[in-house]
Amino acid sequence: LNRILLTSGDPAGIGPEVILKTFLALAQRPESKTEKKISLLKNHIEWTVIGSKIVYQSLIKKLKMACSFDKTGTVLLFNSQLRLPFIDVPLDGKIAIGHISKIAGKNAFAVLEESIRLIKTGRYHAIVTAPVSKEAIALSEPHFIGHTEYYAEAFHAKKVSMSFMSPVFDLVLMTTHLGIKKLSAQMKPPVIKLAIENALHLQAISKDKKPLVVMGFNPHASEGGHFGHEDGVIEKVIRSFKLGKKIVGPLAADSAFQQVYQGKYSTVVACYHDQGLIPLKMLSKGRSVNVTLGLPIVRTSVDHGTAFDIAGKGKATHGSMMEAMLCAARLLK
Amino acid sequence: LNRILLTSGDPAGIGPEVILKTFLALAQRPESKTEKKISLLKNHIEWTVIGSKIVYQSLIKKLKMACSFDKTGTVLLFNSQLRLPFIDVPLDGKIAIGHISKIAGKNAFAVLEESIRLIKTGRYHAIVTAPVSKEAIALSEPHFIGHTEYYAEAFHAKKVSMSFMSPVFDLVLMTTHLGIKKLSAQMKPPVIKLAIENALHLQAISKDKKPLVVMGFNPHASEGGHFGHEDGVIEKVIRSFKLGKKIVGPLAADSAFQQVYQGKYSTVVACYHDQGLIPLKMLSKGRSVNVTLGLPIVRTSVDHGTAFDIAGKGKATHGSMMEAMLCAARLLK
Repeated sequence: LNRILLTSGDPAGIGPEVILKTFLALAQRPESKTEKKISLLKNHIEWTVIGSKIVYQSLIKKLKMACSFDKTGTVLLFNSQLRLPFIDVPLDGKIAIGHISKIAGKNAFAVLEESIRLIKTGRYHAIVTAPVSKEAIALSEPHFIGHTEYYAEAFHAKKVSMSFMSPVFDLVLMTTHLGIKKLSAQMKPPVIKLAIENALHLQAISKDKKPLVVMGFNPHASEGGHFGHEDGVIEKVIRSFKLGKKIVGPLAADSAFQQVYQGKYSTVVACYHDQGLIPLKMLSKGRSVNVTLGLPIVRTSVDHGTAFDIAGKGKATHGSMMEAMLCAARLLK
Repeated sequence: LNRILLTSGDPAGIGPEVILKTFLALAQRPESKTEKKISLLKNHIEWTVIGSKIVYQSLIKKLKMACSFDKTGTVLLFNSQLRLPFIDVPLDGKIAIGHISKIAGKNAFAVLEESIRLIKTGRYHAIVTAPVSKEAIALSEPHFIGHTEYYAEAFHAKKVSMSFMSPVFDLVLMTTHLGIKKLSAQMKPPVIKLAIENALHLQAISKDKKPLVVMGFNPHASEGGHFGHEDGVIEKVIRSFKLGKKIVGPLAADSAFQQVYQGKYSTVVACYHDQGLIPLKMLSKGRSVNVTLGLPIVRTSVDHGTAFDIAGKGKATHGSMMEAMLCAARLLK
């Protein structure tokens, strides 16, 4: 039996709602042999939720959800078979659902700290994270950048890449949550090399036999050095792998993503956040999963944000959370 | 009768081939009343091709195309109705089809100069351009950046935006062929304001009644200033238009393009080349047209490059050229 932690993310966002909706869906789904993935999630994993109990209680009441806490308040009950251990990380004060606040940010951060503490006990094997608001956390933790960077530091992991698995293509990013202004300085051989190494690893996991494609940094991949030196650096790093036609690039990203869409490539290394995530999110329609490669544990996440505008209204969909949980369960196998 | 110039682009690229294929298709298509666009292109426009005659002659011979030059060598004959004035700009030496060369670049540039000269006679009303290789032109014209910048300078036009019309969405770029490193310095109010003004103009042409969406510059549109100041500048400029909900942004580009794909927005302002062109090219499948807004004349272009790898092989498709010609013809109306 594998044990996976679920962090609730920002308590004022849609994290608690999508976690509850996923398990409500699992509780209602019949277990047939054809539904292997339902069985995997229900019978082969013990899920433990970390979050603010009071937030879950109000949400269950408000949205009239068919679940409840047991008498001890440490287990979420969906039905006789589906019981989730729940670890309460209390709020420091009142919060308003759907709004950015320091209290909500502090709670989201405390939940992450608790996840690290639990992982270090050796009892748990993976973490699936619901979305946090970087803005909210930064009100008390000004140096917080994102989940990926946080876990990399907590585990002293140096070779971490923010990555995504989706039905259309898998993606590894060279850089993550960084202003465009700071990108050029990052385009150095170790950064590029690490992303390509992790992408080759991801190809092995996904059994992708197509060439790996590396996107160019500047428009038209600099068109012969015309728009900057960075694509020359990428080219040298690619050549240093000595893998011949197994790695293609740096290609002009606007036309190369057309080819990805047409199925020519299934694993992509992108230089920066929006270059990779614009096409990924557009094509995966909420079915992509954020995977942190290079950590000592498996860590996956939903592909959406806190969605404060619809939080607490019952409108959030749990498809991405289900995919993130499934992806974590599969990566543990 | 409107007169439109067609520039051939790099003579070693697929420009001449897609021009010829478009007219061969037009010559073969029956003129029925249902095919309004064919009639528009055949009967309401006089097209004049500018390029190297020898390149066209070899191509017609090699690909056994059903067209020829008349005795004077100044008219391309497709059939009795379809006759194209042809203006020869001779090559300075031999070129190899499919290869970057200084001679090919010089020829492509001379063709552009000829188009400016002809426009200034007052006889022509628009230009449709086939792709050039910036790398080839730069071998003799080191300051050449691209068609958009070239025509802006030639016409002393200060308020020019590189834009695209496509079946899925229309796009205006704040910046064009610029290295990522130089982008941040460009994110100033006049640049942002100009792109939004041109996008509002494009919305009027396209009769798009949805809100205009402006993409954020940094990941997550800086998430409250977390990744840079640029999105704050964009926000202020948007507010200065005082158009309320008619302009939305700056939005996190990765999720906003999902909404564009879902049809929530039809006109987009993107901050830089790849941010706008990755999703545009992916979704438009070769049916997008590059339009330069803010010139004293109409100028459109194909959305693809010189495609040296397939040049001269008969493999190029003319869909994008047909769309570019159609778009120019419609914009003249």
